[in-house]
Amino acid sequence: MKKKPLLALALMLQFAFVAQAQQEPVDLDMVHRIKQEGLQNSQVMKTAFYLTDVSGPRLSGSPGLTRANEWAVKQLTGWGLKNAHQEEWGTFGRGWEVEKSYIAMAAPYYQQLIATPKAWTPGTNGEVKAEAVLVKLEKEEDLQQYKGKLSGKIILTQIDNEAKTTFAADAKRYSEEELHEMAMSLEASRSQSSWTPERIAEYRARMALRNKANEFFKEEGAAVILSTRGGMHGTHFTSNGAPYAPDAKPALPELEMGLEDYNRIVRLLEAKQPVKLEVETKTRFFDKDMKGYNVIAEIPGTDKKLKDEVVMLGGHIDSWHGSTGATDNAAGVAVMMEAVRILQAMGVKPKRTIRIALWTGEEQGLHGSRGYVKNHFGDPATMKLTKEQEKLSAYYNLDNGTGKIRGIYLQGNDAVRPIMEAWLAPFHDLGATTVTIRNTGGTDHLAFDAVGLPGFQFIQDEIDYDTRTHHTNQDSYDRLQADDLRQAATIVASMVYHTAMRDKKLPRKPLPKPRQTS
Amino acid sequence: MKKKPLLALALMLQFAFVAQAQQEPVDLDMVHRIKQEGLQNSQVMKTAFYLTDVSGPRLSGSPGLTRANEWAVKQLTGWGLKNAHQEEWGTFGRGWEVEKSYIAMAAPYYQQLIATPKAWTPGTNGEVKAEAVLVKLEKEEDLQQYKGKLSGKIILTQIDNEAKTTFAADAKRYSEEELHEMAMSLEASRSQSSWTPERIAEYRARMALRNKANEFFKEEGAAVILSTRGGMHGTHFTSNGAPYAPDAKPALPELEMGLEDYNRIVRLLEAKQPVKLEVETKTRFFDKDMKGYNVIAEIPGTDKKLKDEVVMLGGHIDSWHGSTGATDNAAGVAVMMEAVRILQAMGVKPKRTIRIALWTGEEQGLHGSRGYVKNHFGDPATMKLTKEQEKLSAYYNLDNGTGKIRGIYLQGNDAVRPIMEAWLAPFHDLGATTVTIRNTGGTDHLAFDAVGLPGFQFIQDEIDYDTRTHHTNQDSYDRLQADDLRQAATIVASMVYHTAMRDKKLPRKPLPKPRQTS
Repeated sequence: MKKKPLLALALMLQFAFVAQAQQEPVDLDMVHRIKQEGLQNSQVMKTAFYLTDVSGPRLSGSPGLTRANEWAVKQLTGWGLKNAHQEEWGTFGRGWEVEKSYIAMAAPYYQQLIATPKAWTPGTNGEVKAEAVLVKLEKEEDLQQYKGKLSGKIILTQIDNEAKTTFAADAKRYSEEELHEMAMSLEASRSQSSWTPERIAEYRARMALRNKANEFFKEEGAAVILSTRGGMHGTHFTSNGAPYAPDAKPALPELEMGLEDYNRIVRLLEAKQPVKLEVETKTRFFDKDMKGYNVIAEIPGTDKKLKDEVVMLGGHIDSWHGSTGATDNAAGVAVMMEAVRILQAMGVKPKRTIRIALWTGEEQGLHGSRGYVKNHFGDPATMKLTKEQEKLSAYYNLDNGTGKIRGIYLQGNDAVRPIMEAWLAPFHDLGATTVTIRNTGGTDHLAFDAVGLPGFQFIQDEIDYDTRTHHTNQDSYDRLQADDLRQAATIVASMVYHTAMRDKKLPRKPLPKPRQTS
Repeated sequence: MKKKPLLALALMLQFAFVAQAQQEPVDLDMVHRIKQEGLQNSQVMKTAFYLTDVSGPRLSGSPGLTRANEWAVKQLTGWGLKNAHQEEWGTFGRGWEVEKSYIAMAAPYYQQLIATPKAWTPGTNGEVKAEAVLVKLEKEEDLQQYKGKLSGKIILTQIDNEAKTTFAADAKRYSEEELHEMAMSLEASRSQSSWTPERIAEYRARMALRNKANEFFKEEGAAVILSTRGGMHGTHFTSNGAPYAPDAKPALPELEMGLEDYNRIVRLLEAKQPVKLEVETKTRFFDKDMKGYNVIAEIPGTDKKLKDEVVMLGGHIDSWHGSTGATDNAAGVAVMMEAVRILQAMGVKPKRTIRIALWTGEEQGLHGSRGYVKNHFGDPATMKLTKEQEKLSAYYNLDNGTGKIRGIYLQGNDAVRPIMEAWLAPFHDLGATTVTIRNTGGTDHLAFDAVGLPGFQFIQDEIDYDTRTHHTNQDSYDRLQADDLRQAATIVASMVYHTAMRDKKLPRKPLPKPRQTS
């Protein structure tokens, strides 16, 4: 009996020792220096300016994307990064850009309309002045009554989408309650409650009907299609109206517009008030080089044993075409570029190589990152992995708008929790507090996760991403939050630095099964 | 001593009797019927549709205004009102409308821009493709350095107006606290704290400099001026860029745009990135009939003694040109028209004549109502009043957007407080609770107030008036709140009815001094 307390004490000491050994080291001197450079000497808004205002819309395959890629290579080289270049990831398809876009109502009175040609649709071949026709479309058979009536017409299809005034703010930040709920998640994959099987089926049926209808309108010789996917007060959402594949069937000219302009025409037509529109769009296809290219650059590792190992960070540099893709995703690119600029400006000598990647083709299906991963690390379809796959410690991604970093998604990787908690601790005062087991989807870290590599995306304040910027005609420079981007770049620089200096690579989850491409 | 309590009791009874005599009668049966018709059978949105979508922009002197006036006369007649007609109020000036408006950035890349020609500016006479030039303008002498450099150019002047993301909602309603504060006001005229003498002087100096600059740009042969008065996400404010007087000096073509599009060009030019724009605007002046006309119609009074007395209600039907003036002020017109429709549909036989007036020229200085008042009631410059002035009981105005009625401004007239309190009581459940001694300005009731007539404007919830609709390119039908307009029309109908049936006309304030045109 006497020895028991001693044994207990010994066990306790042993436990304490183990716990101490597991305490992830944080280089607070480096954190201080990174904060100094990142918060005091930030160039993140200058970088964002060149990506947005100077480069313009960066649709994959477009001259705007090429301008941005070329500028990024030059700028990364200028900051002293090594091996900056554009690296082909595979075949994308045709490029496309808008050369003119004009639409107005000409009768019953003149009114300019705000609209954007859908990507990869043709232009109107000069100005079209024509009547608008409302096609009431609930099922395929509804089309038959319009046979022979649509030649030369401008087509709208019935919508029931009110442009309802909202009494909530466009922009918001996470509340402490929301962050707490994320931190306390029971599982990595939440049930996708908003996309129920019924909703998916309904969506697919709607898309199929739309495609049938668009084919019908083309056969009937309609001149232009107008559509809307929401947006208010001059803000509207933009997307593609035809495939970018070089052998895609020709489509009709199609423009997307906001709800008010669309609803007005619908209301007038429903009240039997004739509406005439004038439309002139000119779009251009590019098919000389159908390859896709990511921008890659490095701060080489300096440790004999570890310099072949790599830490990656990145975000997609391509955008939709309605504006200059400021929050989606010049913000993420500017932050990642600023993170390596901070480290380079400090003259850090990382043990592992730090590699930045600016992906393209993301908006059409994470093509750039998936191509890169397949070329370098392995094929998720077969799970045949490369030697390089063993050498990558982690990939950090940023692609959730302009909001500051509030924490990180562990993407189901419990083993990295204590590491991330330790590395985020010096940034609690900047609002980055939350580590959540949750997965997050929809962007390039998934390409890494699919071949068993630790790929992470940060939790960011949403700001006005859903309401005003994400895939809209208003995603321009002024929507960027300068302070948030400074904060994010500083945190990313520190996370990447610590990953590059750590004794071991980051722990991994068990390998996924083949074809598990999430 | 014995008699004193009795005397006190007698005095108390007398007081009670007096108080009871002063209790304003309310016809709750009529209120019930008005609510039935106004809330169950509302046509207010249909009326708003014809004023906005069908008529279009209603700038004073424009064909859009004529369409709306003609439709209103026809509709009021159709509802059974008598003597519906357009009544000339005096000379306005030239009409003007937009026939084409197109602007885009052509270099460094193509990007459509959202902009509206300023009212009464000329068009570009075909498409202008030209360089944008940033004129840094703080004082008149700054212009000299641009001498000889602006020919054929598109001019922007430096601004420091950030398009800052807001975390507040665009739309809001009055809180109970705000209404309470209004009700508890100590005086009718609040100190105009936001327009201090310094601010007024600064504003005047800025306008004077702008006028000097615009003359200079014209002398130098510039092609187009671009300007902004704020607005975000595709919403921008619109105004006039030249006078409507027939002898106004010719101006340059000038367009107004939102902050983001403007700021982008400024940023590019500041970074020495050449910007080319393409602009084509066509505007048209109308000088055949330079008179201004209000729409007038009546429900005739039926009481032998009182039918020559009049109760008026109205709002201005003219708008700015950037959209269809839905909340400024198709909303007010639709509500006032609906109020008389309700009464007419109920077959009321008012003692006094009820007269609706839809004013024009309001946006340029309350011209229509001031002209009407001068023609009918008296000249505020001399305070020579007419016989008709004696016959008007009250004028009710609505021109604060689409929000429901929360109460009424007494415009400093304490004597009507118990009357208004009694008449609003049956509408407390609809949110109309507040009677405030305060004045409110800026619209047509002031014309009546200026000649000693009881002119009232209602307290309305602001909704998104300041942020999205008031004088913007986005003031269109979808911004109307149908429920709010139904509520407002119902309340106005009851107020007007009770005014028409009251034994006496409404009490008046002491006559103002001559030239006191507030």
